[in-house]
Amino acid sequence: MIKKVGENTVKFTVPPKIISGYSIVGPKEGLSPFAKYFDYILRNDDFNEKTYERAERKMLEQAICGAIDKANLLSTDIDILLSGDLLNQIISATFSARQIQTSFIGLFGACSTMTESLVVGACLIDGGFANKVACATCSHFSTAERQFRFPLELGCQRPPTAQWTVTGAGCSIISREGKGHSISYATFGKVVDFGINDMNNMGAAMAPAAADTLKNLFNDTKTSPNDYDLIVTGDLGKLGSELLVDLLESYGFNLKENYCDCGQMIFSNTQKSFMGGSGCGCSASMINSYILRKLDDGDYKKIILMSTGALLSTTSAQQGETIPGIAHAIIIEKGK
Amino acid sequence: MIKKVGENTVKFTVPPKIISGYSIVGPKEGLSPFAKYFDYILRNDDFNEKTYERAERKMLEQAICGAIDKANLLSTDIDILLSGDLLNQIISATFSARQIQTSFIGLFGACSTMTESLVVGACLIDGGFANKVACATCSHFSTAERQFRFPLELGCQRPPTAQWTVTGAGCSIISREGKGHSISYATFGKVVDFGINDMNNMGAAMAPAAADTLKNLFNDTKTSPNDYDLIVTGDLGKLGSELLVDLLESYGFNLKENYCDCGQMIFSNTQKSFMGGSGCGCSASMINSYILRKLDDGDYKKIILMSTGALLSTTSAQQGETIPGIAHAIIIEKGK
Repeated sequence: MIKKVGENTVKFTVPPKIISGYSIVGPKEGLSPFAKYFDYILRNDDFNEKTYERAERKMLEQAICGAIDKANLLSTDIDILLSGDLLNQIISATFSARQIQTSFIGLFGACSTMTESLVVGACLIDGGFANKVACATCSHFSTAERQFRFPLELGCQRPPTAQWTVTGAGCSIISREGKGHSISYATFGKVVDFGINDMNNMGAAMAPAAADTLKNLFNDTKTSPNDYDLIVTGDLGKLGSELLVDLLESYGFNLKENYCDCGQMIFSNTQKSFMGGSGCGCSASMINSYILRKLDDGDYKKIILMSTGALLSTTSAQQGETIPGIAHAIIIEKGK
Repeated sequence: MIKKVGENTVKFTVPPKIISGYSIVGPKEGLSPFAKYFDYILRNDDFNEKTYERAERKMLEQAICGAIDKANLLSTDIDILLSGDLLNQIISATFSARQIQTSFIGLFGACSTMTESLVVGACLIDGGFANKVACATCSHFSTAERQFRFPLELGCQRPPTAQWTVTGAGCSIISREGKGHSISYATFGKVVDFGINDMNNMGAAMAPAAADTLKNLFNDTKTSPNDYDLIVTGDLGKLGSELLVDLLESYGFNLKENYCDCGQMIFSNTQKSFMGGSGCGCSASMINSYILRKLDDGDYKKIILMSTGALLSTTSAQQGETIPGIAHAIIIEKGK
């Protein structure tokens, strides 16, 4: 049976359920207005490991194991782990997969990875290829800074359009059966590039891709923004969110009523993060804490989740290439 | 309906068809014993681009467009492109996806990407989420050397266990309908690490993962090596292949009759490539040329394809981490 709806969207016949979510964040994120929703807050951003890379993967492993545990499962109950991260050759995800010892599909979608993994995971479950999958991702401020920008020790000044990479990880367990919120639709993203080449302005680079995916979702499902209680993006930040609202307005959709962005929300205004949070861990930690809790509490009945990614490398940036973006979206409906 | 067979394998109810394949390789690979099977051979390994990175993505784009063209399709007929590569943040795949302008799922499985994309692609088709997908990957000797090892200009000596990254790309179009060879089963790989930490001995790092996946495939499908006309791995090279044969023997399976490795085959003994070829482009170019042709010609009726990946980054290597491996496999049966 063909489950395609329109150009870029699929409708799940037996909507996969999000049966648990776990979030873990760093100390700065622990001072966030959303701190009480996170499952675990690190005291030190090295998580007692000798490198930040090891700290990052330890967070990811804890997120995966924590979500499995919350669902009252064992890691042997998980058919497939879908994960990726920002580090070169996604070492956080692959080294974590080595610990979890289940089938593993490595993904790369930069900061769009949380919803990328949920989209692919939901397809694998609805298609009958798995009963339970773990969808997880992470990021760490210090690993991202030294890989993508400058060594922390240099103390480089950040421009006002910069975002702050979230130290955090999140994991959702999705299942064919059981109680949980349903993933009813998924919209696959396309790579969109409006020609931004400023590595310190990710929001502007990602907004056009986010607008494209959201427009496609509305058109494919014949819905509009007011059919949803909340439309939440990954980490466009303040500037990127404004651009998204403007772009959507130009496509005939009004996002002003019920739209928010994890990057814009995660840090308070006093936390010196300029345009807000970014990194795979931003939407991963917010989705698997505050957003799921609000669905649990019945504050939301039907929402759109869309993580957004900026697809650059230091090589592409140094070679003068522009920064393409991508965004994948899912529709979640509150479980009964 | 649950399509899981055993622990790690899925059986496709309406086996997706490989309706076309396209391969493109560099000049050194153009002197391979298999040269006549490749669709396109570069005269210069820069492909008339100003950087090797641009040359790599141009090959990937040509492979994708070439495979679409061979299937008498337009790029608008492709629902989803599944692709990844070895470069940091898979820029070859994402920049190519920007050109193709279809839904895009970015994957990372190092040199296992060709079969990783076929596994996920076949699931998306059999599950009803797409009618046609493009599965593609690439690698380039010069981009890989400078990213993972040393600048070419240094002229570093290579140890005898080294492999030579293939300059090449390949793309398969798989479809719900149409004429082509069927993907009947897929086995998801797990991350396996036997503690190898020598960046110049990828074959040894990947062989344990390859052995694990192959053993799982045989057990899950209740078959043995002599049920297949050919069992072909991605790029274990000479040493890795020997290790795989030994490991499989210890698990009770005899691979000596009908096993070969793309890495071992692609270069002739006079081509100074030590243990053979490697890189995503190795199995991608061999599968989408020689292997598909042999199926077309009826020389093979049922084969196992398994690309293998070494999951390291320069950061993980410099931090003294060992090299985990992964391998994903599919069973292909000749189309009528």
